[in-house]
Formats: sequence, structure tokens, C-alpha cells
Amino acid sequence: MAAPAVDFWFDFASTYSYPAAMRIQAVAEAAGVAVRYRPFLLGPIFKTLGWDTSPFNLYPAKGRHMWRDLERICAALDLPFQRPDPFPQNSVLAARIALVGLAGGWGADFCRAVFRAEFAEGRRIDDRETMRNILADLKVDPEAAIEEAHTAGIKEALRAETAEAQRREIFGAPTFITADGELFWGNDRLESALAWAKRAVA
Amino acid sequence: MAAPAVDFWFDFASTYSYPAAMRIQAVAEAAGVAVRYRPFLLGPIFKTLGWDTSPFNLYPAKGRHMWRDLERICAALDLPFQRPDPFPQNSVLAARIALVGLAGGWGADFCRAVFRAEFAEGRRIDDRETMRNILADLKVDPEAAIEEAHTAGIKEALRAETAEAQRREIFGAPTFITADGELFWGNDRLESALAWAKRAVA
Repeated sequence: MAAPAVDFWFDFASTYSYPAAMRIQAVAEAAGVAVRYRPFLLGPIFKTLGWDTSPFNLYPAKGRHMWRDLERICAALDLPFQRPDPFPQNSVLAARIALVGLAGGWGADFCRAVFRAEFAEGRRIDDRETMRNILADLKVDPEAAIEEAHTAGIKEALRAETAEAQRREIFGAPTFITADGELFWGNDRLESALAWAKRAVA
Repeated sequence: MAAPAVDFWFDFASTYSYPAAMRIQAVAEAAGVAVRYRPFLLGPIFKTLGWDTSPFNLYPAKGRHMWRDLERICAALDLPFQRPDPFPQNSVLAARIALVGLAGGWGADFCRAVFRAEFAEGRRIDDRETMRNILADLKVDPEAAIEEAHTAGIKEALRAETAEAQRREIFGAPTFITADGELFWGNDRLESALAWAKRAVA
């Protein structure tokens, strides 16, 4: 019987993916559930819904609630929080480097560092300098990682992940999917997803 | 100092308002927070967002997740669940009668009975017969209540509540607003709203 596992689908530009990314490791470990990081791009999926930017920009009242809600959630988790500017950030570069890192054993640390840079430190994640600093902190050769992130193989891998997200009917982030295909949308569904993952293999 | 209180804004057609309505009394009582029921109509607010029906109909993947998520939530709460047909139901009649009931002391019981009829028993809430049955079960004179629900005063009161909801930037239901104006959207934010309400008067 396979060990309980959950796929953690996220976009680095996604606001609620920040608290999810910062807490998933500890919560999943406590629950005995393995986590697979699946960075993807929400933009192409939003486009198919007719949105050319985040729905939090398109629907201002919803956006104002989200920023306030996120502030409250981060305060409760003792996570520093700054509103990214611009929002949403372009997350393509970070997502490509994350795929390099996930194959190289430093992916999860890199993902947390990107979310921290963006939502705690107010840094731009489409800036190569931000990426270089994060990679250097992780003792990863920045130039080699960035170069690999721009290979056709990695570009295609990110496109394939985004297509797979759409095939699985992902419409927002974060989304958690268990091995038996159950989909849970939202940081506030993480615990339910972990419980489901455990039950699915019990 | 005022006692902690929360306004519970909901539309009878709203799916996540069902579990919220069924559990709010017990959870709020345990927290020592008073609940004010504020039925309103989401339809006019959705229209200003450019939606002529529920976003769960407009965005099918989001809708499919919502139905499944609601099923899981109801199962966890031991609440019977049936998907209403059609969805969304026309909630004007039920909302008007609820305003009569909230002024008459049977409002909260009526609200729960309407949600039960719609989401547990598969009954149509735009059907006067459903309303008559619910009212009779509550030992309320059905014809008198329905007649009062159609007076200009009640019609205007519901319009005013919907306008107030919009003024407060409510964009979905259920929404909880504390006495100091903090807004929490979603059944999954009920506990946070109650904690905030207590803190606000502490």
C-alpha cells in the first residue's frame, strides 16, 4: 500500500499559496503525509475563464477582503506579511527555477524562500537578482540554475504541469489533490486534504 | 461595554450559507457571541459584478469543486445534503418571510427550516407550499406571515438590507461582520469572526 501523499499545486503569484507553502511541511509531517510540490501557472487557466489578471484585481471588494483576510491569517501564523507590488507578480521565472530545484533536491527550500521574498520582504520575484540571492543562500550555483531554468526541457515541463493542472480542473491556488484524485481548493482546506490522504490509503 | 456580537449576512440561495446557518447558533453560544440574522439578496450584488447567475454556474470547474466540498463539509457535520434543483433557487419569498419572522421572534428557527428544506429535503423555497409547511410547523399562521411578507414595508426592508450589504462591500455569502466592522467571508471563517467579536469588546 502506498504511503499517504498529497500534491500541492501552487502559483508563486498566488496570495493564499503563501501561508500554505510556509506551513505545509510541518502540518503534513505531523499528519504523516508526503507532499509533492507542483508549481504551475494560473495565468493561462484564468485566461480560459475570461480573466486577464487576478480576480482579486477584477473584483475590488473581493480583493480588499482577501488582503485583509491574508493579513489576519499571517498574523495568526506569526508570518511576516507585505503586500506585493505589483500584484500579481510574474511568476514564470520562479516557477521554472523551482522545477530545476525540485529535480535537484533543493526545491522545497527554494519555494519557501521565494514566497518569503515576495510576501514577507516585498521583493520582486520576476527580478533575476532576487532569484540569484535566494539561490546563493541555498548554496546553489545561481547562474547554472537560471541557465537550466531557461532550457527548452524546463520550459516545456512547466507548460505540461500547467496543462495537467487544467486537465485536473484546477481553477485556483493553492489546490491539494490526493492520490485518489480528491481535489481541495484553498489554504483553509489543507487539513481536510491531509485527513483525506490518510483515509484514502487506510 | 456591549456584549460581543456578529452580524450573519446570508442569502437562502447560497450553498455555503447552509452549513453556516445550521451550526452558527451552537458555535456562537459556546463562544458567548450574540448573532444577528441578516438575510439579503446576492443577485443584485452579483449583477453589479457582471454575473447574471451564481459564479458556480458561470465557472463550471469551480462549481464542481463547490458541490463536492459542500458534500464533504455536510458529511463532517452530519448534515443531510441534497443538491437543490434548480440552482440557485429564487430566495426572495423566503427572505421576505424571514424578515417578518426576525421581527416576530421565530426568525432563526424559520431560517434553519428553510435551509433544511432546500439543502436536506430537496424542496423548492420559491414554492409557497414549502413556506406554508415550514410556518405551520413553527406554529406560525402561514397566511398572515405570507401576507405580511408582501407588504411594501417588508419589500422595502429587504431592498434596504441588500443595499446595506453592498455598502458594506459584501460580495458573497455567508459573510460575518463584527460590531467594529471587521468582515469575514465564508462558512470557514465563522470561528475567526467569533474570536474577533470577542476580542473587539474585551
